[in-house]
Amino acid sequence: VREFDNNVQTIENWATKNQSETVLPPLDSAAKLVKTQEVEQIASGKISPLGQLHESYIIAVDKEGLLLVDQHVAHERILFDKYRQKVGARRIESQNLLLPETFDLTPAQATAYDLVEKELEESGFGLMRLSGRTVAIKAVPADLPAHEAKNLLREILDTVDAEKRGAARDTWRDEIAASLACKAAVKVNMKLTPEKMQWLIDNLLKTASPTTCPHGRPVILRLTMRDIERGFHRT
Amino acid sequence: VREFDNNVQTIENWATKNQSETVLPPLDSAAKLVKTQEVEQIASGKISPLGQLHESYIIAVDKEGLLLVDQHVAHERILFDKYRQKVGARRIESQNLLLPETFDLTPAQATAYDLVEKELEESGFGLMRLSGRTVAIKAVPADLPAHEAKNLLREILDTVDAEKRGAARDTWRDEIAASLACKAAVKVNMKLTPEKMQWLIDNLLKTASPTTCPHGRPVILRLTMRDIERGFHRT
Repeated sequence: VREFDNNVQTIENWATKNQSETVLPPLDSAAKLVKTQEVEQIASGKISPLGQLHESYIIAVDKEGLLLVDQHVAHERILFDKYRQKVGARRIESQNLLLPETFDLTPAQATAYDLVEKELEESGFGLMRLSGRTVAIKAVPADLPAHEAKNLLREILDTVDAEKRGAARDTWRDEIAASLACKAAVKVNMKLTPEKMQWLIDNLLKTASPTTCPHGRPVILRLTMRDIERGFHRT
Repeated sequence: VREFDNNVQTIENWATKNQSETVLPPLDSAAKLVKTQEVEQIASGKISPLGQLHESYIIAVDKEGLLLVDQHVAHERILFDKYRQKVGARRIESQNLLLPETFDLTPAQATAYDLVEKELEESGFGLMRLSGRTVAIKAVPADLPAHEAKNLLREILDTVDAEKRGAARDTWRDEIAASLACKAAVKVNMKLTPEKMQWLIDNLLKTASPTTCPHGRPVILRLTMRDIERGFHRT
């Protein structure tokens, strides 16, 4: 509370000082309103998206207040959970490429390839080892934009090479699921329809851990009504 | 920065601890992101409203980030500036009541009434002193909901009585303008159309002091892109 009062003081001093100019309040005037508080269970009420902030963050409201959702990591979390369920069961859908693409492996990538070929096939890749260290990509996971296929393959093989040679198959499956989720997810700086925003939020809340992405980053930030009202001196 | 890091730590610990339950992050996870920073001039770019939070606060975006606008005090500021310009010039529009209403003054209110009768007429009231301490209200300021007329009159007369007997006429005019602005402004818990939200924001920015209402409360709170991105571990 003390911290908040200091902050208010700052806003007020500033406002008085600048009364004659047309200025907005400091850019951070909505922050620092709050102290750490107890964790609360999920609000079972509906979360309604209002729109996007810079085509990157979904701004939504629920009965508790305001939510910001990072659209990329939200989708990543949804896809990761889906892939992780499916990769072992070999149920990730494939899309065939009209023209197979070729991919030249480095020696290290070739070794990694032999280790995880089975997991790649389970993940929706259709691959064929050609002569030398060339691989033909005939099919890619269905959700993946075709132009991302090579990037994803390179990323997975480099990860396996760098750290995971001794790892269990489940670890590789998780790595592949995480890489695939990241590449297939909507990006930031991408306009979303209201329906897609609602879909993302609804499906995010069904995941095992809606608040963190597979790499551990936050997916949702929140501001309570109480803190907002306090910021406006209404409580 | 240190403060922020601590906060992140808290979010992460919490996320890990609760990974198996479906929970949202703490309600205050978007706050405490920021330290005090330099005041910046108004962003000349457009501010676009996205919607309302609990039908009370307008959520808007500009190129700097997110803005929250208290719809009542924003309108209050707009009306106050308008009335203050007009009250002296006797240019506040009136609306005649279909049936004049009567208002019984207390002795103190009657004394106050004699002091500010001229300013009340300048503010758009059409008043006639009847026998005893009764006043007939024939017309009210045009923006004012008719049912607020008596409340406003009572508020003004009580303010004059309590503190302002010795004050200058300009002070009374400001008091009347502030009271009238408050009563005529949109309330909280009121649904606004997108056009009305845009109108409020555009006209707020034209006022002398868009950041504070006539009573000194903040009108706008802000969160920067930078702080939001930091909250999402994107910087």
